[in-house]
Amino acid sequence: MKPRVGVIGGGQLARMMILPAVNLGIELKVLAEAEGSSASLATTAVGDYTLYETVAQFAKTVDVITFDHEHVPLEVLRQLEASGVSVQPPSRALAFAQNKLHMRHRLRELGLPMPVWAEVQNREDLQEFLNGNGGECILKTPIGGYDGKGVRVIRSVEDAHAWLEPEFLASVGGVLLAEEKVDFVREVAQLSARRPSGEWTPWPLVQTTQQHGVCAAVISPAPGANAETIAKAAEIAQQVAEGIGATGVLAVEMFETPNGRLLINELAMRPHNSGHFSIEGSVTSQFEQHLRAVLDLPLGSTDARAEWAVMVNLLGTDDKNDFVSGYAEVLAGHPSAKVHTYGKSPRKGRKMGHVTVVGDNLEAVAAEANVTAQALLQG
Amino acid sequence: MKPRVGVIGGGQLARMMILPAVNLGIELKVLAEAEGSSASLATTAVGDYTLYETVAQFAKTVDVITFDHEHVPLEVLRQLEASGVSVQPPSRALAFAQNKLHMRHRLRELGLPMPVWAEVQNREDLQEFLNGNGGECILKTPIGGYDGKGVRVIRSVEDAHAWLEPEFLASVGGVLLAEEKVDFVREVAQLSARRPSGEWTPWPLVQTTQQHGVCAAVISPAPGANAETIAKAAEIAQQVAEGIGATGVLAVEMFETPNGRLLINELAMRPHNSGHFSIEGSVTSQFEQHLRAVLDLPLGSTDARAEWAVMVNLLGTDDKNDFVSGYAEVLAGHPSAKVHTYGKSPRKGRKMGHVTVVGDNLEAVAAEANVTAQALLQG
Repeated sequence: MKPRVGVIGGGQLARMMILPAVNLGIELKVLAEAEGSSASLATTAVGDYTLYETVAQFAKTVDVITFDHEHVPLEVLRQLEASGVSVQPPSRALAFAQNKLHMRHRLRELGLPMPVWAEVQNREDLQEFLNGNGGECILKTPIGGYDGKGVRVIRSVEDAHAWLEPEFLASVGGVLLAEEKVDFVREVAQLSARRPSGEWTPWPLVQTTQQHGVCAAVISPAPGANAETIAKAAEIAQQVAEGIGATGVLAVEMFETPNGRLLINELAMRPHNSGHFSIEGSVTSQFEQHLRAVLDLPLGSTDARAEWAVMVNLLGTDDKNDFVSGYAEVLAGHPSAKVHTYGKSPRKGRKMGHVTVVGDNLEAVAAEANVTAQALLQG
Repeated sequence: MKPRVGVIGGGQLARMMILPAVNLGIELKVLAEAEGSSASLATTAVGDYTLYETVAQFAKTVDVITFDHEHVPLEVLRQLEASGVSVQPPSRALAFAQNKLHMRHRLRELGLPMPVWAEVQNREDLQEFLNGNGGECILKTPIGGYDGKGVRVIRSVEDAHAWLEPEFLASVGGVLLAEEKVDFVREVAQLSARRPSGEWTPWPLVQTTQQHGVCAAVISPAPGANAETIAKAAEIAQQVAEGIGATGVLAVEMFETPNGRLLINELAMRPHNSGHFSIEGSVTSQFEQHLRAVLDLPLGSTDARAEWAVMVNLLGTDDKNDFVSGYAEVLAGHPSAKVHTYGKSPRKGRKMGHVTVVGDNLEAVAAEANVTAQALLQG
């Protein structure tokens, strides 16, 4: 019998799961929000993932439920689990992905390194945190934030005025998360995958570059990382995965500080932008590994397939450039660049696709990835 | 606008075109023979490809028509072309793939190296050919043969008795093709791709191993091939492609003789079993290149992604082993092997999937590919 995986959400992550599913003979089904999603090729149901009945009907057609995003209400997932459905990652793990305060509390219990943080419910709490952290901080809504949304740099209590209004505060759970503004030399991400039965495998530590809170580029492996940092990052990721009971792919985004410490910034419990390089860069891509992991199949090798892999995101420039109509000329000049498009209608700032180049010379690989992306951005 | 490619035939070749189509944002549509084909994920029509109306209806939904197999009647293709449809490869090229005698005549006109051959219409013709070629030959039906079907080793006129019966002879075009039984040291294949506008790109020359007329294993590049042979193979393939007007992927299967000559055995005008290695082994796979070529998009780099790639076919053992249900244990022991399955119902001898391993040490890579395949064969 074919293993059957159901993905909730029809975005580019579901789309990119289609490829390894075809290879491995896995039947992939997608519950999309709407017709014409990125993952429309594998879409077998369209509906509202916040409704238990819709998700339960979909779950009947597969062996395991997993996710393109982390927004399915926990009550829906708990009810599914109670009825015997395999949900991977399970609701108890996703609870931490859905609430950054719960995540911070759990990481503290696990003794893992992270920025100084505190709960903020009012002006006094915030002023106290600012006083103790050099007069500035990062303020986050515990729920609902992603890709730079729900995150603000705060330099005075006034900067947080709108978020401290009772109505807004109530809408995000009654409390905000204040974090020290970390002085970091760069951001890194440790991708790994874990099976329900315990097997855990990391990819190489990668360096990520953000622009306006959105991932812009990834270099694998993180250039110049020393053996101690590499080992520490993997150790942190394994402790997180086991400590929160994550299954499937887990991305742990971290700050690397001037004195070489790693501080956990964000978690994602699914294939992640920082792992797109693995499609060409690794023996087993994050999308194949995620499918294997959620089905509790043995994990594949995460060995690098080249010295370096550089991934550059294609962020929408306007409502016209689909990164496909005009790419013939770009492909002609860049025969080694692997162009991935997500089948989305164009919109400024939207993740429309990415480009990956692999090879043995970092400068050449990075230049080729960047020049190709620039050419595609020009439409 | 998304480029739209229509594939006639729903076999594993169409199935494996789905992956690069997703990446490049190409809309892939498949006209399958039946529901539940290997390429069912991309199947948008089910019907009889020998009926002009069926194919013409399908052609209206795409920008270009291409193929999973070479069996679409030439009249159907010519009528499509006359009505303005882009058919790639075009009917004039496919005519040579569909009739081995036409192919031999054309290759002779082009002055290309091949086995001694002759047309055989009766016992006398065959006896004369046997007399001139050491008493044995390969006899082929000009049309309808593939994967060892329509090919026989003949050591006396009696061996060909059934094929020389008037009724059978008429069913294959009234004439047979006799070829010398070449004394070869090995078989090799030169894969390449060509755009309608002319750009042509080869992959490395590969070594193929056949069992009972079916491809069993491929090593890329062909071990120990000298520079002269490599250059000659590429030159032959380019002359074939241009000489017959092939577009898309073209496989030229050749014998390498003890004195280092290359003799053209068979042609395939589509992605081919000898090129499956390219999914992991090359910067651009044969499936991506085929889509680019038939759309007249610039071709991608065919550089190797590792020193060696070894592909081993998974041929059906019985009507039970689907090469999926039992693969968990095999995956556990072989984390670097890439397993590809074709979603077919099990049948003895059927191409059910393949395994590819890449790496820097040929012995290790070949051993891993073979051991993994053996383990999967045991179900």
